[in-house]
Amino acid sequence: MNPAEDGPDGGPDTPVVYELAADCTLSDASEGELYHAVVNGVVDYGVFVDLSDSVSGLVHESNLSTSYDVGDELVVELVEVRDNGDLSFTPVDIDDPETVAVAHEYEVAETGSLGEQVGDTVHLEGEVVQIKQTGGPTIFHVSDHTGVVPCAAFEEAGVRAHPEIDIEDLVHLVGVVEERDGALQVEVASLTALEGEEEDVVRDRIETALDERAEPHDVEPLIEWPALEQLFPDLEEIAKQLRRTVLESRPIRVRHHADGDGMCASLPVELALRRFIEETHQAPEAKRHLFKRLPSKAPFYEMEDVTRDLNFALEDQARHGQKLPLLLMLDNGSTEEDVPAYANLAHYDIPILVVDHHHPDPEAVDPYIDGHVNPYLYDEDYRITTGMMCVELARMIWPDITDELRHVPAVAGISDRSKADAMTEYVELAESEGYDEEFLSDMGEALDYGAFWLKYDPGRNLINDVLNVGCDDEERHRELVSFLSNRAEEDTEQQLDAAMPHVKHERLASEAHLYRVDVENHAYRFTYPPPGKTTGEIHDRKVKETGEPVITIGYGPDFAVLRSDGVRLDIPEMVTELNEEVVGGGVSGGGHLVVGSIKFVKGMREQVLDALVEKMADAELDEDLQSTTVGHQQDD
Amino acid sequence: MNPAEDGPDGGPDTPVVYELAADCTLSDASEGELYHAVVNGVVDYGVFVDLSDSVSGLVHESNLSTSYDVGDELVVELVEVRDNGDLSFTPVDIDDPETVAVAHEYEVAETGSLGEQVGDTVHLEGEVVQIKQTGGPTIFHVSDHTGVVPCAAFEEAGVRAHPEIDIEDLVHLVGVVEERDGALQVEVASLTALEGEEEDVVRDRIETALDERAEPHDVEPLIEWPALEQLFPDLEEIAKQLRRTVLESRPIRVRHHADGDGMCASLPVELALRRFIEETHQAPEAKRHLFKRLPSKAPFYEMEDVTRDLNFALEDQARHGQKLPLLLMLDNGSTEEDVPAYANLAHYDIPILVVDHHHPDPEAVDPYIDGHVNPYLYDEDYRITTGMMCVELARMIWPDITDELRHVPAVAGISDRSKADAMTEYVELAESEGYDEEFLSDMGEALDYGAFWLKYDPGRNLINDVLNVGCDDEERHRELVSFLSNRAEEDTEQQLDAAMPHVKHERLASEAHLYRVDVENHAYRFTYPPPGKTTGEIHDRKVKETGEPVITIGYGPDFAVLRSDGVRLDIPEMVTELNEEVVGGGVSGGGHLVVGSIKFVKGMREQVLDALVEKMADAELDEDLQSTTVGHQQDD
Amino acid sequence: MNPAEDGPDGGPDTPVVYELAADCTLSDASEGELYHAVVNGVVDYGVFVDLSDSVSGLVHESNLSTSYDVGDELVVELVEVRDNGDLSFTPVDIDDPETVAVAHEYEVAETGSLGEQVGDTVHLEGEVVQIKQTGGPTIFHVSDHTGVVPCAAFEEAGVRAHPEIDIEDLVHLVGVVEERDGALQVEVASLTALEGEEEDVVRDRIETALDERAEPHDVEPLIEWPALEQLFPDLEEIAKQLRRTVLESRPIRVRHHADGDGMCASLPVELALRRFIEETHQAPEAKRHLFKRLPSKAPFYEMEDVTRDLNFALEDQARHGQKLPLLLMLDNGSTEEDVPAYANLAHYDIPILVVDHHHPDPEAVDPYIDGHVNPYLYDEDYRITTGMMCVELARMIWPDITDELRHVPAVAGISDRSKADAMTEYVELAESEGYDEEFLSDMGEALDYGAFWLKYDPGRNLINDVLNVGCDDEERHRELVSFLSNRAEEDTEQQLDAAMPHVKHERLASEAHLYRVDVENHAYRFTYPPPGKTTGEIHDRKVKETGEPVITIGYGPDFAVLRSDGVRLDIPEMVTELNEEVVGGGVSGGGHLVVGSIKFVKGMREQVLDALVEKMADAELDEDLQSTTVGHQQDD
Repeated sequence: MNPAEDGPDGGPDTPVVYELAADCTLSDASEGELYHAVVNGVVDYGVFVDLSDSVSGLVHESNLSTSYDVGDELVVELVEVRDNGDLSFTPVDIDDPETVAVAHEYEVAETGSLGEQVGDTVHLEGEVVQIKQTGGPTIFHVSDHTGVVPCAAFEEAGVRAHPEIDIEDLVHLVGVVEERDGALQVEVASLTALEGEEEDVVRDRIETALDERAEPHDVEPLIEWPALEQLFPDLEEIAKQLRRTVLESRPIRVRHHADGDGMCASLPVELALRRFIEETHQAPEAKRHLFKRLPSKAPFYEMEDVTRDLNFALEDQARHGQKLPLLLMLDNGSTEEDVPAYANLAHYDIPILVVDHHHPDPEAVDPYIDGHVNPYLYDEDYRITTGMMCVELARMIWPDITDELRHVPAVAGISDRSKADAMTEYVELAESEGYDEEFLSDMGEALDYGAFWLKYDPGRNLINDVLNVGCDDEERHRELVSFLSNRAEEDTEQQLDAAMPHVKHERLASEAHLYRVDVENHAYRFTYPPPGKTTGEIHDRKVKETGEPVITIGYGPDFAVLRSDGVRLDIPEMVTELNEEVVGGGVSGGGHLVVGSIKFVKGMREQVLDALVEKMADAELDEDLQSTTVGHQQDD
Repeated sequence: MNPAEDGPDGGPDTPVVYELAADCTLSDASEGELYHAVVNGVVDYGVFVDLSDSVSGLVHESNLSTSYDVGDELVVELVEVRDNGDLSFTPVDIDDPETVAVAHEYEVAETGSLGEQVGDTVHLEGEVVQIKQTGGPTIFHVSDHTGVVPCAAFEEAGVRAHPEIDIEDLVHLVGVVEERDGALQVEVASLTALEGEEEDVVRDRIETALDERAEPHDVEPLIEWPALEQLFPDLEEIAKQLRRTVLESRPIRVRHHADGDGMCASLPVELALRRFIEETHQAPEAKRHLFKRLPSKAPFYEMEDVTRDLNFALEDQARHGQKLPLLLMLDNGSTEEDVPAYANLAHYDIPILVVDHHHPDPEAVDPYIDGHVNPYLYDEDYRITTGMMCVELARMIWPDITDELRHVPAVAGISDRSKADAMTEYVELAESEGYDEEFLSDMGEALDYGAFWLKYDPGRNLINDVLNVGCDDEERHRELVSFLSNRAEEDTEQQLDAAMPHVKHERLASEAHLYRVDVENHAYRFTYPPPGKTTGEIHDRKVKETGEPVITIGYGPDFAVLRSDGVRLDIPEMVTELNEEVVGGGVSGGGHLVVGSIKFVKGMREQVLDALVEKMADAELDEDLQSTTVGHQQDD
Repeated sequence: MNPAEDGPDGGPDTPVVYELAADCTLSDASEGELYHAVVNGVVDYGVFVDLSDSVSGLVHESNLSTSYDVGDELVVELVEVRDNGDLSFTPVDIDDPETVAVAHEYEVAETGSLGEQVGDTVHLEGEVVQIKQTGGPTIFHVSDHTGVVPCAAFEEAGVRAHPEIDIEDLVHLVGVVEERDGALQVEVASLTALEGEEEDVVRDRIETALDERAEPHDVEPLIEWPALEQLFPDLEEIAKQLRRTVLESRPIRVRHHADGDGMCASLPVELALRRFIEETHQAPEAKRHLFKRLPSKAPFYEMEDVTRDLNFALEDQARHGQKLPLLLMLDNGSTEEDVPAYANLAHYDIPILVVDHHHPDPEAVDPYIDGHVNPYLYDEDYRITTGMMCVELARMIWPDITDELRHVPAVAGISDRSKADAMTEYVELAESEGYDEEFLSDMGEALDYGAFWLKYDPGRNLINDVLNVGCDDEERHRELVSFLSNRAEEDTEQQLDAAMPHVKHERLASEAHLYRVDVENHAYRFTYPPPGKTTGEIHDRKVKETGEPVITIGYGPDFAVLRSDGVRLDIPEMVTELNEEVVGGGVSGGGHLVVGSIKFVKGMREQVLDALVEKMADAELDEDLQSTTVGHQQDD
């Protein structure tokens, strides 16, 4: 608004004096008009006055009849705007002026298109998504409906500028667009928190825009499979939340099961989110800061892991001014065992999303989490593996990576021994990409073997090469898979050479075969394959060998791994019973009906195992029941 | 000194030629006077000559009668100082001049107020406290009596400038004050080490000023308690040394006991020092570089820890040009077991301060350390916990944090089961802050539980939230404490459910009850509570249950934890005897009279425990003796 | 080429129009000549045209008869080169011009001497050795025959410039030399990959120069010793490959045995390479980025280690655009056990060099590696220790460090109990440096002790002080060695006090003494000395005590360490036999004839040890056979 044109006419008797808002610029003032001013400097040749944060100039000594101190208020006339931009004023003595407030007339610029406004003063409205203190200025990262831009405010070297502004505040910012080392940055002139209606309007604008930009892509399922397709709306909701989290510059931390299916789930999501971050965030370090993936040692979210994750998140918040992260649990996170960890996070602003295919306990888990996709919630089961779901999830986030993922559901399914009918189609799909079934199985083995030696380091580049997701060298991928899977097989052979002669056999009353092996004493320790996998291998061989119902127990000093085929076990119930019956046994554990693991105190092993075998002897046979590897196993 | 005015008059027969010192500026020279000069460049139109590092100019070719090479010396007259600052000279031919040395007349600037001298050339005198080589210039951090400022000297890209200057040298530096990314920096023009008298004067000035600035604050004790107040002079000495260490830009590394009292001791000191560093150091990274806190796994300073600490310190020294650190031991460090680690540090410039309340061995320890506060040195005992002392220490360093610390001594005392009379007052003080006794006890549990899962990571942000020291969210603090202490209790219940049925009881000849439990075989391993704490819990229950004298032994394969109430044990003596009597038992260990732990070789457990029990059976009863948790326990 | 002078004369009928190559500068153009031009901007007052990447100017509107769009081609005359560098053109209408291509005439600058060309536009030809993406420009590190310089190319903030250029491409680059924070950098104007003949010429030039610069120094052996001197050509080849690797900016990763000889081998090589890197790379961080040393836990290259190393290398490649490293194995790497790790690396561009003195298996190893020095390949044996070889290797790389290394071969030899005749001379050499034999032995102990507590952290600064290689404080070195070796002796005494009473003795049929000790049950665990060293100490004492043939077995739950003196054992053969005879024993392991270690599954210990002793009882006596510590021992 130009007061010279638009201001109310005060008439000759009550002259109008304009009061510029703090963010007014010279374009809001006119020569010849009167303004309220404040003295901000006294020099030999006059006094300097401020009309707003950026409009100021000199009242020459020759025009002054009285002396002023800094802070004094007076009314001035804007006499002249010189060619070099300097302003000159004269003081005006008025008794009872009519004061008219002038708000700054401005266009709000968009962070996404500041590249064309280098050197200009711009107005931005958005949310503060990160506040990083440097040795010089404070850097406020401001996000609006079009992107994010760093804005440097300087108070004093190393001193936090605008301490009144917090992360997630909505602000109005005025500053000059600069190019710094080739990247855009705004040098802040003024920065104020929005309030009331203004805040609502801006929040609305950003929300609407984010919502729109967060919208996931429509994807055609890789294969026709109604069982999986019914989960699509839930997966789309997860995709939207993840995209939105990126747009809000909130970091994402993925915790996933450290096995084949877990990696088939997390690698596609990682690739999709990294591509999306690349597109939406200028800073090349954003990919690293906004996304972190970590395999979990245990098949659930342990107190140790959550304590460390929380500690790191708080450290990042304190040091880099980042938001607390969103936690995405993959192939993990649906069970009651995860609840203590979730409860620990509940005291902090850390949303949680879960995509899992382990038997869920939604009553226990759902109060703590913000999204939960699991086939059991649709009366489906583990056969829809997390890898299968997450390939579709990744495509919803960033569909361009589809070509890199066609073989992944087959690897996931084979790794987790999915008996889904759809496996045939998934394998055919992978074959059309040049993979035969044996090689797909080798990829699963190689993922397992690599993960074991990485000892819960994510090992991104190495694992990408194994799964051929985001890998740029097909030949290396093929060689690496062959090498690692061969090594895995050789090591397994060596392990079984040592263990097999010690496997004890007995025939249960039910006619089922029971095999027991002490994997602590009769297998190598601290090497591949670990106890759970060793037990599984023995079990599989015995099932093949006998063609009859088989139960296998691999036990160590304070744990036992259980596998069964063709026997109607109910491991969770057995654990409950054992805990009551064996006093001081400290029995706990879990798993599915026919596969799982239990823990107990070392000194009670004999009693616990004896009681366990007794229960197994009573179990009915049922040849439809087959064990898989998706149970919770002890394998650290 | 302006030679034109002050120089001796050489008379017409022996003209005076002035010899400017290297740091002289134009203000030390005058038109019309004669100067010794050195040719530094030969060009078509004349030669350039230097009078000092910064005074130089042209002798025009038209005035030259002979040719010169770079490095030649000659006498010149300063003919004119042009408006643009250029100087012109003419050569003067003099046979036997009287040479008068001219020192530069300057005012020494203060690093603390360079903000007003941006663009000016200044002189600084101070100590070099850090030398960091960058890919460009070498950065000398210069500290004087008012502060520290980085000074950039450039020799060649990535090449160490002024290799003759070492860390801790006193120097005279001339340079231009610049603002760089908003922070102040001095671009070095000349840099020389001070020597002799000059060095002494500057050292004196800095020492006096540092001494004054290091002076700790006078604080009123939180409660009236003469037993503690008599330690105040010693604590003030520690406070002064710590403040001075910060002012000298020497890093401080804290090692503390990883339990409740240890954290109640170290967190207040950390907060106080971080605030003090913030005030005295501009760089925001100073807080991180100058202060590091690490919990110790063992209750003493292990060879592994000291080796790693020393290695990191040497690495920081080599990479960042930092001084070696001062080591502050909290709730740890008073015993003979710490001596080997101290002896290792003795070969390096690493001062050591100790504040501890474990039974000290000053004869063994004091030769290695520079400050030692321990209640036993005043005929007091463990009841004055380290947390109680360190709250006062922290207030001496930075009194403004007093409001955040009033509840801490109570938590410390409850955690360490202090039977001090003053506990009543401490608890009342905490109650006035809104904490009831049960919640204070919960905070102790929560600290323990958090520390256990952090696995010896300091976990600053998380632990601050638990103790509510430097935490900004009261509600989160309360919720977090409730959550963690509940979890600790649940886990303890579960552990005792397993262990209790296996506790063996016998009645000693002395009528005391002896309880034994195999915490390796009848408790969960690698989880909370660990063996020592499990033993303590069992002991406490048995004391309550029987109301009579009780000894409890929790043993693992190669260790035993001992607790006793109402029995006159002398564990250190028993260890000495056992070591002699059980040949090849490798018995070692320690602790207090009635609480402690011993180690032995695995294969001799039966013999060691039998001999131990025999000794215990002979011990007299004495109902005043109560065990506490401050003994040295095995809990990793 | 100046077309005005050198171009073919097209005659009046067919005017010559010059077509400037993209990298042509104004020096390639002349006033009055005709040029092909492309419109790159349309403004009110005319159009701007490009003749090449850097030659452009205005065609004034007054000279235009028709309108142009961006991208239109036209022929122009260069009318004038103004004083300020601006060019003015007029359009020329020509039907059928004779076009003459003009290549840019330029001098190729040398990266090693850009310091004198700040502000100039230069041409560089070289290899891209690193590509680092920043938040602003992309930094290409370009290496030619004289050095390496960073070159900044800007596309868009954070966007990879010149995605068509890959690491290891040979390029032609035009840019302006700038000084940035004191370091040189080239701002890229154009960057193109060289192809065909041009590429060959440049590659040839670089190769020849690198080859020359990589040439190792001729060194006189420290002592006259033909056995070692015959290895010099092989060592020179290794030195050359290492120097060349540095010149090519490929990182070097050293993996070495974590014992005395291993450190005497790796520290000199580290010092030499760091000095060489310092001389050849400007960036001060180059020393850290281009060289990393890590001790190996096992006496061979484990799958876990190689997996981690590869993972880190791939991460450095992805994040910092570095080349994959060269792997240098020292005192390690010659045996079949290393092959799986090497096979894993074979899928990546990671050359491998080995300098070792353990019994090699060249048939298994050599297919995977690029250089192999081992005394056994010359019919010599372990007595030429790796430390002895590597001192000479280090001197070939950087001879100036010779004075710091004279005592090192003696330490290496004493550490590994070398019985070489040359030991006398090596010890004399060390004595001439002020070391007596006892102190040399203490240094070996101190290295061992320090390495143990560093837990496989390289601990550079600390270990340098112990070995006095790159240490700047002789007194500290002496004190530190005394302290650490004393501690090592004390700890060893304590360990043997516990273990000695449990040593079981029997007399074999062969009259040899057999000593057995359970180092898991009768020695402290997780402390110094570890099981293998404990066994060695016991063995040495028994050899001294008896003066007769002795075999010592130190066993734990799943391993046994073997030492023998005066008995003709063949441990590798015994392992092979045991593996066949003890079914399900999982026996594996290795070592030399008379020293080694074996592994087995825990539950079969009795059977394995009994069978082992039986075999030993049959072994013939042979007093010449002495055990040393260079066998592969279990010591983690």
